[in-house]
Amino acid sequence: MVSEEIYRELSVKNEKKIVLLVMDGVGDLPVNGKTPLEVAKTPNLDALAKKSITGLTYSVSMGISPGSGPAHIPLFGYDPFKYDIGRGVLEALGIDFELGKKDIAARANFATIDKKGIITDRRAGRIHTEKNKKICAFLSSKIKTIEGVKVIIRSGKEHRFVVIFRGDSLFDCVTDTDPQQIGLRPKVSSSLDSNGQKTARIVNRFVEMALPLLKDYMPSNFVLLRGISRYPDIPSMEKLFKLVPAAIATYPMYKGLAKLVGMQILKTGSDITSEFKTLKENWSKFDFFFIHIKKTDSYGEDGSFDKKVSVIEEVDKHIPQILDLKPDCFVITGDHSTPCKMKSHSWHPNPFLLHSPFVRKDLAISFTELECAKGVLGRFGAVNAISLMLAHTLKLKKYGA
Amino acid sequence: MVSEEIYRELSVKNEKKIVLLVMDGVGDLPVNGKTPLEVAKTPNLDALAKKSITGLTYSVSMGISPGSGPAHIPLFGYDPFKYDIGRGVLEALGIDFELGKKDIAARANFATIDKKGIITDRRAGRIHTEKNKKICAFLSSKIKTIEGVKVIIRSGKEHRFVVIFRGDSLFDCVTDTDPQQIGLRPKVSSSLDSNGQKTARIVNRFVEMALPLLKDYMPSNFVLLRGISRYPDIPSMEKLFKLVPAAIATYPMYKGLAKLVGMQILKTGSDITSEFKTLKENWSKFDFFFIHIKKTDSYGEDGSFDKKVSVIEEVDKHIPQILDLKPDCFVITGDHSTPCKMKSHSWHPNPFLLHSPFVRKDLAISFTELECAKGVLGRFGAVNAISLMLAHTLKLKKYGA
Repeated sequence: MVSEEIYRELSVKNEKKIVLLVMDGVGDLPVNGKTPLEVAKTPNLDALAKKSITGLTYSVSMGISPGSGPAHIPLFGYDPFKYDIGRGVLEALGIDFELGKKDIAARANFATIDKKGIITDRRAGRIHTEKNKKICAFLSSKIKTIEGVKVIIRSGKEHRFVVIFRGDSLFDCVTDTDPQQIGLRPKVSSSLDSNGQKTARIVNRFVEMALPLLKDYMPSNFVLLRGISRYPDIPSMEKLFKLVPAAIATYPMYKGLAKLVGMQILKTGSDITSEFKTLKENWSKFDFFFIHIKKTDSYGEDGSFDKKVSVIEEVDKHIPQILDLKPDCFVITGDHSTPCKMKSHSWHPNPFLLHSPFVRKDLAISFTELECAKGVLGRFGAVNAISLMLAHTLKLKKYGA
Repeated sequence: MVSEEIYRELSVKNEKKIVLLVMDGVGDLPVNGKTPLEVAKTPNLDALAKKSITGLTYSVSMGISPGSGPAHIPLFGYDPFKYDIGRGVLEALGIDFELGKKDIAARANFATIDKKGIITDRRAGRIHTEKNKKICAFLSSKIKTIEGVKVIIRSGKEHRFVVIFRGDSLFDCVTDTDPQQIGLRPKVSSSLDSNGQKTARIVNRFVEMALPLLKDYMPSNFVLLRGISRYPDIPSMEKLFKLVPAAIATYPMYKGLAKLVGMQILKTGSDITSEFKTLKENWSKFDFFFIHIKKTDSYGEDGSFDKKVSVIEEVDKHIPQILDLKPDCFVITGDHSTPCKMKSHSWHPNPFLLHSPFVRKDLAISFTELECAKGVLGRFGAVNAISLMLAHTLKLKKYGA
């Protein structure tokens, strides 16, 4: 991959426009001999594949199944091993919380401890979300600040919630209180270096303060905090690549990931049609558009093969609309595979298609895993996709004389 | 490639089993238009290839012909550039010497020097192995300790032998005495840092003591030492990957390499049939099996094309036995190529096949160099094979949230 210094040096601004269409978890494994991409009727994608270059990408590295964070940031041009996005930050992004640059976010669980202080259930029997909201509201009314640091509590689904600590001199070099195992006592957060002492103290004080407040909320009589983290110090896409990027996504986490790298988040509806409409409406204002299609992944996670096929077919119908906008570089890919028969993210490489006036011929005749394996791009790390997108829009100067 | 930290963090133990079948030096070049793999009748490998994923691996890097050490350790998951296995250690492993963690091993040659002390033959005319044994026995009877350090001398083939120094405060940061060129004087071993002074002194003293003892053994009137080395500090496969690995090999060097990374060495016979029998007998006890087939390489080194073909055909007959054991991941590959027309290790990439319930379709219809070139895995460094094997047995957790 190209270093950030090289990108800063070589990238230039011009009028050409890039569209990056990510079908989340689109890659799959065959069921009865065929994958959803192979079963789906996709005349527009097929036609496009015949005049595009294709390949297969590794999301982060061969054999590694990535979470949503490390699966997306390489597509934006960032090394997923360098920029580790903490669990607390991701959860805050996921509930659409407006995280400040200095805020510390922790992923929290309601949990159950016995009289001896031993954890008996890390998820408090997966309490109902409504119950969670009530307890979070109660805790919020009772714990507002600790040592002048503002404490913000936001409920999530079932046993999950997020705690944000907002104040001065907070750092994310502190350990979890969640031992990630039952039958143990909760841990005390400690600082990994001299900067984190105040943060660790406040985290521990939060747990102490919550304990008496939760005594009547069995089985939610305890809180466990992990992934205590801050916004990573990540240079924006504008700084690195001189792009003016925008994101069109329906789920908070992907909007959050896009915001992390400096994309403007465009308001859109909740369905695919709305997303493509938003693209058209904002076409003149940006030169990089990230469009995120969530449901290919959701149906993969559910193991709903036919529904995944139908989402792919729905996306296919919108392809001509994108082509009508005449993007100078149009990439279609997945962030990771979500095989229906595994019902989870997997390591299988992602089909990748790039359309531009500057492409060579290719052997792929459709946008499927197997056809993209014939592509001229071969197999490559997804983190290199940004180089291809910038190159095909003439946004990278020559390297060296 | 994935870092060791990531493997330590992501790897999990489960019941699934991996078989890594290495046909040493199996890759070749065409003779009369076909390679041994293309000539061999391999109905079982062909059938397996049709339902597996394939590719070509670079043993250590494009264009590099590796020795046996750097050709094997990547297949076990180790960076061959990081873990440099000294020549002395490899030779000790190769003669089945039980090397201790602190022992210093040197590859030694009987050599010829003239009256002025100039080396005239670095191999003493490639003396007979029997002669070598006699001289080694004589030296052993005369040189037992130096400064309290035990000196162990073991004969090898022709002019080759191994000297092991066993004692306290020995380090392997010392230079060779072998200048690797005739017409020069032997070198004096020197320490590369403050730790190696005692070792260098003992190495030099050994050479001094051998000189008068060898005066009647012309042309073996001198000894040259090189690759003065210690067991590398290499984390075990159990520590890195949480595997319980076993090795089935007939030659000492491969057993030694396997032991180096913490594999248990299983007792087996001297032929291929015995090796597969050993696999079956030990099936329940381990979750990673490395099976080493030596003769593909030996016949490549001899330039015996037909014999290499027959070894491949013999291995093919045993494939159903392995499949009957129902391995969760079954990999077949070479460690490097040994083209019959080159009679040596080469840089040509190795055919690679992976069979598992979690594979996509592939275009390869047999296990040959050219068919594997069509495979979905493309070309990749052999060091990544471990990620694939772990992924396909669900032994790697998701990376990031």
